[in-house]
Amino acid sequence: MLGINCIGILTSGGDAPGMNAAIRAVTRTALYNGFEVKGIYHGYRGLLNGEIETFRTENVSNIIQLGGTILKTARSKEFQTPEGRRQAFENMQREHIDALVVIGGDGSLAGAREFAAEFNFPIVGLPGTIDNDLSGTDTTIGYDTALNTIMEAVDKIRDTAMSHERLFFIEVMGRNAGFLALNGAIATGAEAAIIPEIATEVDQLAELIQNGFRKSKSSSIVLVAESEVTGGAMGLAERVKQEYPEYEVRVTILGHIQRGGSPTAADRILATRMGEAAVDAIIEGQRNVMVGIQDDKLIYVPFSKAIRDDKPINRDLIQTIKMLSI
Amino acid sequence: MLGINCIGILTSGGDAPGMNAAIRAVTRTALYNGFEVKGIYHGYRGLLNGEIETFRTENVSNIIQLGGTILKTARSKEFQTPEGRRQAFENMQREHIDALVVIGGDGSLAGAREFAAEFNFPIVGLPGTIDNDLSGTDTTIGYDTALNTIMEAVDKIRDTAMSHERLFFIEVMGRNAGFLALNGAIATGAEAAIIPEIATEVDQLAELIQNGFRKSKSSSIVLVAESEVTGGAMGLAERVKQEYPEYEVRVTILGHIQRGGSPTAADRILATRMGEAAVDAIIEGQRNVMVGIQDDKLIYVPFSKAIRDDKPINRDLIQTIKMLSI
Amino acid sequence: MLGINCIGILTSGGDAPGMNAAIRAVTRTALYNGFEVKGIYHGYRGLLNGEIETFRTENVSNIIQLGGTILKTARSKEFQTPEGRRQAFENMQREHIDALVVIGGDGSLAGAREFAAEFNFPIVGLPGTIDNDLSGTDTTIGYDTALNTIMEAVDKIRDTAMSHERLFFIEVMGRNAGFLALNGAIATGAEAAIIPEIATEVDQLAELIQNGFRKSKSSSIVLVAESEVTGGAMGLAERVKQEYPEYEVRVTILGHIQRGGSPTAADRILATRMGEAAVDAIIEGQRNVMVGIQDDKLIYVPFSKAIRDDKPINRDLIQTIKMLSI
Amino acid sequence: MLGINCIGILTSGGDAPGMNAAIRAVTRTALYNGFEVKGIYHGYRGLLNGEIETFRTENVSNIIQLGGTILKTARSKEFQTPEGRRQAFENMQREHIDALVVIGGDGSLAGAREFAAEFNFPIVGLPGTIDNDLSGTDTTIGYDTALNTIMEAVDKIRDTAMSHERLFFIEVMGRNAGFLALNGAIATGAEAAIIPEIATEVDQLAELIQNGFRKSKSSSIVLVAESEVTGGAMGLAERVKQEYPEYEVRVTILGHIQRGGSPTAADRILATRMGEAAVDAIIEGQRNVMVGIQDDKLIYVPFSKAIRDDKPINRDLIQTIKMLSI
Repeated sequence: MLGINCIGILTSGGDAPGMNAAIRAVTRTALYNGFEVKGIYHGYRGLLNGEIETFRTENVSNIIQLGGTILKTARSKEFQTPEGRRQAFENMQREHIDALVVIGGDGSLAGAREFAAEFNFPIVGLPGTIDNDLSGTDTTIGYDTALNTIMEAVDKIRDTAMSHERLFFIEVMGRNAGFLALNGAIATGAEAAIIPEIATEVDQLAELIQNGFRKSKSSSIVLVAESEVTGGAMGLAERVKQEYPEYEVRVTILGHIQRGGSPTAADRILATRMGEAAVDAIIEGQRNVMVGIQDDKLIYVPFSKAIRDDKPINRDLIQTIKMLSI
Repeated sequence: MLGINCIGILTSGGDAPGMNAAIRAVTRTALYNGFEVKGIYHGYRGLLNGEIETFRTENVSNIIQLGGTILKTARSKEFQTPEGRRQAFENMQREHIDALVVIGGDGSLAGAREFAAEFNFPIVGLPGTIDNDLSGTDTTIGYDTALNTIMEAVDKIRDTAMSHERLFFIEVMGRNAGFLALNGAIATGAEAAIIPEIATEVDQLAELIQNGFRKSKSSSIVLVAESEVTGGAMGLAERVKQEYPEYEVRVTILGHIQRGGSPTAADRILATRMGEAAVDAIIEGQRNVMVGIQDDKLIYVPFSKAIRDDKPINRDLIQTIKMLSI
Repeated sequence: MLGINCIGILTSGGDAPGMNAAIRAVTRTALYNGFEVKGIYHGYRGLLNGEIETFRTENVSNIIQLGGTILKTARSKEFQTPEGRRQAFENMQREHIDALVVIGGDGSLAGAREFAAEFNFPIVGLPGTIDNDLSGTDTTIGYDTALNTIMEAVDKIRDTAMSHERLFFIEVMGRNAGFLALNGAIATGAEAAIIPEIATEVDQLAELIQNGFRKSKSSSIVLVAESEVTGGAMGLAERVKQEYPEYEVRVTILGHIQRGGSPTAADRILATRMGEAAVDAIIEGQRNVMVGIQDDKLIYVPFSKAIRDDKPINRDLIQTIKMLSI
Repeated sequence: MLGINCIGILTSGGDAPGMNAAIRAVTRTALYNGFEVKGIYHGYRGLLNGEIETFRTENVSNIIQLGGTILKTARSKEFQTPEGRRQAFENMQREHIDALVVIGGDGSLAGAREFAAEFNFPIVGLPGTIDNDLSGTDTTIGYDTALNTIMEAVDKIRDTAMSHERLFFIEVMGRNAGFLALNGAIATGAEAAIIPEIATEVDQLAELIQNGFRKSKSSSIVLVAESEVTGGAMGLAERVKQEYPEYEVRVTILGHIQRGGSPTAADRILATRMGEAAVDAIIEGQRNVMVGIQDDKLIYVPFSKAIRDDKPINRDLIQTIKMLSI
């Protein structure tokens, strides 16, 4: 097994539901296969500071259902410097960690890629991000839970929207990728989704809404991906209010509730299978790959491909939203 | 029974979970007792516009679990004028509505009080508001559900707060009354609650937070009642950041999700019992009272008392929060 | 403070949601007031076996939202013998535990009463049981959560009951007390509740159901308290099927899901306030009392009164169910 | 468009969450494309009895989030006879229904296949069943929701299992297919899954459980698919208790709660996409096919293939469960 005895594991970047299920799967699969396992707290920062602990099977008991990450996460500026990474690598050596499993989003995997290139040891990544914006994998750990959290929140808002017959702009996460907004709109029967992949003019939006009201729909809900370009839900609402002052417009920014919560079945199963595959990857001698899932099969994706910013959305769904909001 | 044959029912003001359970209880208790029942849509506005429909038992089938209000709600400027109220009363007469049940908050009950005074017919109010800010009743329809919605949202945020070790300000409803913020803080184990009833200095707050971090708590959460005085969560966060730039502060405004959702058991039971009591009140010849609950007994509270802005919070809970966040 | 330096805490009997919130409140209130705190695992059995650990504030961090009990619970036959209790008391002395807080149901408090009588030291009880069958307190820790769990399960079953137009008997806990069945029926709009406090003939039940079907209700749901007398939901369904073979009858026994789950806001707040009051009781020199709540005020109830099997249900609700299922 | 003007839609067999989302999507997509739409109540029985209603866009407003089926469902013995089907076809002609969309499980699609063969008109099926036991499609409408419902129930039971350190057998649906039990076990971190596809000896099971207890796991949970062969959870528990009386065994049968509840995001999106595809199929001249999804692409599956009883489970997951319960 290439002289690998001890696997280190860390979570990095924004936390995502299912990270704990992944930590559990990596830990137990590794232990089952005879490896030693070390948990590294606070992501790369903990690697720098030596916040490292030997993990036994009990360390991951009864965590599969917990949101967040028991390993904590942090952003580390120091790790972005060559000196920082050298320090981190030296700590790894001191702790006899031979391989690393990194659970996180694109920033975290970009860091992993650089780290691995400099010091030539195996890193395997797991896609842990609610945004689903990693390429080479159909879905990411945390995305399904976040989508359901959004759906439940919008269901609640629709109760009140329908009681008052109002227009709601609801902002969801996804600065670079519209998966949450687009699929959230389908799942909630929203009237429109404003996503970074597709430019939307206020006029188009207004027309759509007017059509809705003309058909005497009792409420209209628009899901908006957060964005510095459009100004998000708040920016959009401002422009609609300016041009169409007759609408009673309300804005809700879902914010940090989208990251938390007990993971869904799909996320727990995905995280479990991917965690197992990460250890398999190390056993097989893979390095510097992210575990992905495509057509329900686990695959290995080179980091360079995973962090490419070109994951396509399903554009047919835009038409679906339009048809179904008649 | 004082010549009352037909009872009208409407919901008014902000919607609250449990309103449908109350509509069901009023409708069926009235039908069971031989009354005719008419549902009035869009609150007082529907009374003005004649949006009125005869209700049978099927109209309220399978609604006990729904958030919002099937009767819709609206705010009506016209009803605030004497001419508007005259119009509304004439519509009631045309529809042969002899008595009215109004479900809503303080504004709605103030309107009911004026309406009843002018035209001398029985109105019974039900306290339907998530804010719990009506006097003469221990609790209001919708409050328990909103409190649980807040709790679940804060539980989710704590997942991510703990993973990142951050300070969160979370804004909840309750412009005039701190029930949601105060009890929400107890229920979530928050580090502090900022409520309108008690002035809080930024220094006090910072001290509290610093104590928390000194004790190496992994996260701090402060619940803040929305407020024009303090600027709510956003205003507070600004001031803390200015004076203590070393804190990583995040803000979430829960917003409209607090009004929606399927009502809790407590709210459904309360709404059911109060709805039944509203019809009893009419049978007993009560008029111009709100149904309240005190020490688990249903009582009648004069409108004038119900809308008094002096419902006391349980100040002991402030000390409880302080003790339990050590 | 009567020479009390160290407070022991244990949970006993069936677990109930909110026990962890109570453990947290007792621990931190005690620490805040300068006491030492010791957690005793597995109830009285752990007292016998010496499964005892010093508790610091971190031991109860982030547990307020968890179902079950971190202190575990067990039933101990040995503790029911004088020798067993002597052993337990000697362990307490060895650990310098001067006072005990016991969280549990009637069996646990009966044990506490006997233990305290024999060895003359302060025990304070907290009512922790989903059944709400302790006297002298309006409600118990865990009851509100269980009621909501039942409600959510019945809401789900009603989806399918309405789709198929069937008659469902759903069994809930409450062998000696019908609170869950009765209030669960109100909260779910069920057609009837079969509870131990009130004998129900199959004929009455059948009449009620026939009325429902005659009125072309799309489904009928009856909540049944578990019972050896009636045979519970299964026994009842058998008898109805025998006499009325034309009904399509289904049975669901909710079982152990009723004990678990994250506690509701009401249960967390109740457990927190009661936990604080337990420590206050010890400070005040109270002994051999259960903390209760009456009309929202915390009170002390002698054990002998708390375990009396005579807590009255609200019989008006039977009539409410009947009226509202028209 | 082959002379098709009016599309009928019905739900049949056991209800599944997401059926309403499918009804909404079929209805609105059909209306958007210029078809007339007729809703048929109570499945094939309603076709026989003429329980048919013209559907407009409002008929499917605000139903995407509802469990069950607004069209109701029923089993019809009469439809299983040639005379019954003739009657049904004549009613279709009288109502000018040219094509049928049937949402249901294998029995319903087998009926559709026979019906279409006899009268030569287009029927398109949608896979609506929580069991996921239809071939030619990766997943079925309702499966993801049922899986999450099971997971949430088991999470609750684990709270109490861990508090008491017990062995639980939990029975889930899936008489012919172990998807729910197997994936439910992965999602909840259960110690084993007993499924129809794989014979399990009591000895194996006992060994597994003993290993668990030897490793001092605090509880053991086994998910069991309902089965007449093994006797389900109850039968299994009996045999374990007989041979290993030292275990404290508990049984819970989840039952009908598994069918209900608001559908998850995945089920709503799946149902929406499939509903749209059903209308596309009719437009394209497809007939006697079920809409399936494979590798996230919508496909058409001949009825004969869809109802074949040979859908493979992912056997790797058995090993995963074993590894992760160390």
